[in-house]
Amino acid sequence: MERIILNIPGSRSEVLVGEKWESVANLLPERGVVVITDDNVKRLYGSRFPEFPVFSITPGEESKKLNTIEHLSEKLMEAGLDRDGFILAIGGGVVCDIAGFLGSIYMRGIRFAYISTTLLSQVDASTGGKNGVNAGNAKNILGNFRQPEFVICDPEMLLTLPEEEYLSGLAELIKTGVIGDEKLFEVIENSYEGIIKRDPVLMAFLVSLSVNFKASIVSEDEKETGARRILNFGHTYGHAIEMHESYVHGFAVAAGMEIATRYSRAKGFISDNEMSRIINVLNKYDLVREHDIPAELVGHYIQRDKKKTGGDIYFVFTAGIGRAQCEKIPVGEVISFYRGNKSRH
Amino acid sequence: MERIILNIPGSRSEVLVGEKWESVANLLPERGVVVITDDNVKRLYGSRFPEFPVFSITPGEESKKLNTIEHLSEKLMEAGLDRDGFILAIGGGVVCDIAGFLGSIYMRGIRFAYISTTLLSQVDASTGGKNGVNAGNAKNILGNFRQPEFVICDPEMLLTLPEEEYLSGLAELIKTGVIGDEKLFEVIENSYEGIIKRDPVLMAFLVSLSVNFKASIVSEDEKETGARRILNFGHTYGHAIEMHESYVHGFAVAAGMEIATRYSRAKGFISDNEMSRIINVLNKYDLVREHDIPAELVGHYIQRDKKKTGGDIYFVFTAGIGRAQCEKIPVGEVISFYRGNKSRH
Repeated sequence: MERIILNIPGSRSEVLVGEKWESVANLLPERGVVVITDDNVKRLYGSRFPEFPVFSITPGEESKKLNTIEHLSEKLMEAGLDRDGFILAIGGGVVCDIAGFLGSIYMRGIRFAYISTTLLSQVDASTGGKNGVNAGNAKNILGNFRQPEFVICDPEMLLTLPEEEYLSGLAELIKTGVIGDEKLFEVIENSYEGIIKRDPVLMAFLVSLSVNFKASIVSEDEKETGARRILNFGHTYGHAIEMHESYVHGFAVAAGMEIATRYSRAKGFISDNEMSRIINVLNKYDLVREHDIPAELVGHYIQRDKKKTGGDIYFVFTAGIGRAQCEKIPVGEVISFYRGNKSRH
Repeated sequence: MERIILNIPGSRSEVLVGEKWESVANLLPERGVVVITDDNVKRLYGSRFPEFPVFSITPGEESKKLNTIEHLSEKLMEAGLDRDGFILAIGGGVVCDIAGFLGSIYMRGIRFAYISTTLLSQVDASTGGKNGVNAGNAKNILGNFRQPEFVICDPEMLLTLPEEEYLSGLAELIKTGVIGDEKLFEVIENSYEGIIKRDPVLMAFLVSLSVNFKASIVSEDEKETGARRILNFGHTYGHAIEMHESYVHGFAVAAGMEIATRYSRAKGFISDNEMSRIINVLNKYDLVREHDIPAELVGHYIQRDKKKTGGDIYFVFTAGIGRAQCEKIPVGEVISFYRGNKSRH
């Protein structure tokens, strides 16, 4: 088991990669705990949950809204949860985003922690303290930065994931390789069999590389005013594709990374060979779906993106495998590049 | 004009007491500002608001709910407000609580500031960074601690307040005198005429004493884990009375202070003379309303109170005019004292 510590002023968070999830019992207070999960996770693991009240939400992005926060807050009050209370989220990104946001605002903030059950949340959502819900058409438009006390990433839990959900997480792992860790990228390039069969030892290794990288970035820039922006590689187009095509997050990000990689080549930041390696890996795992956002809508989706500032946008390029480069680019150029390079299939 | 600075790690906030509210124009960015207000304030002052989009809510506690946050967040998105945006709240406690909470979570936190239009918000709500909304029957159950960049307290604005709203704020001023500033208490004791006619020079002086005291407490304990608890003097019973009798906040707190003062006498923390002085001031301004919460409900309301921890409650006593004392008291004793000392009228 590897323990990765995030040292952020005013808070401390640790990610336990390769830990058995049932050992959470040793990390919880004796009383005043509630579990927040979703119906799928509860069906698979609920019989072994620690013995506290369990509140289960409907799985999926649709639950990420203020109504769910309100509903759960009433449940917490009924359960008598006070300022010394503790929320344990057991689930993927949706469950952790909701429970973390609720934990950050219930009675103006109580203790909370996650057991991350999906690859996507193990490599991404659970590290860094971002939480939130959607409103209108905008993803994560209402939320906080607040670190969970701990996150358990148990690779054995990945074995019960639907194929699509597993591959969706793989896209974020590839992203981390491309922007920050060449070794991680190479292992993904060369370990197709082990990754597809979800070998727990291999996956714990990959998750720990990814969490280590993300932890170093987040410790430096918790609130995304600088270095943290590079984590959005593939996400500007990715969010637009996700909204328009309703793809699962990782597939939308994979498609977004494919265009961002071509864009990086067009800017001269990477070689043809580097571009091919990145796109080949995305295709090897069959991650890139077709997409075609009409010209008049690309701007609409991108303008809604929180990374926008004025008429320019912070766009993240790769500057070689394992390196990222963030540039302020006029929104118009970002839209044009999309229209010239949308679906290649 | 007096400038009172709150130095809290990671943020800085200043309260400008005695400043003309129209001078806010000098403190705002040139673009990306929205104004959040309520229909009453807009009717009285809207024609002189700075020229930015204005979103107005229905006045009153009923607006303090997640639905309002969702509605406003959609308005901000329509107005194109991004991470560099700025929310200016112009209103009383409800407007500032809503706008501050929204500002603290919109895109995970943008800049915001207040013009406090009521005495209650000038002396209390606007200093300290607490914000939030109600859910279920619980007040402020969802919120954050986040400091506004600045707060303008213009005593001239108090002249347009309905009598009840003005007196409600006076109750919080008396509270500050009782727990922390004997001079403030004595001025309130001895300046009945000036206070009733809302003399702007006198009121600026009283507000600045109150804000200075609160700022010193909050700077020491932003998140209410210790010293800040004393600010809840009168509020444990006060919140229960407010919920049960639907009184305006200040009147409920005044009634809560009356019992808490008797309780302080019963505990031997104050003399008969001190008790009389406090209760006489509350009566001089006709602040204490009748109340009678049935025995079986007192506990229910207090259990919902966020200050509760386990079977004990942090209860704030006065230990002489200008001094407070916070003690852990069994909930049962707090309930019994209420039943033996409820309405004395």
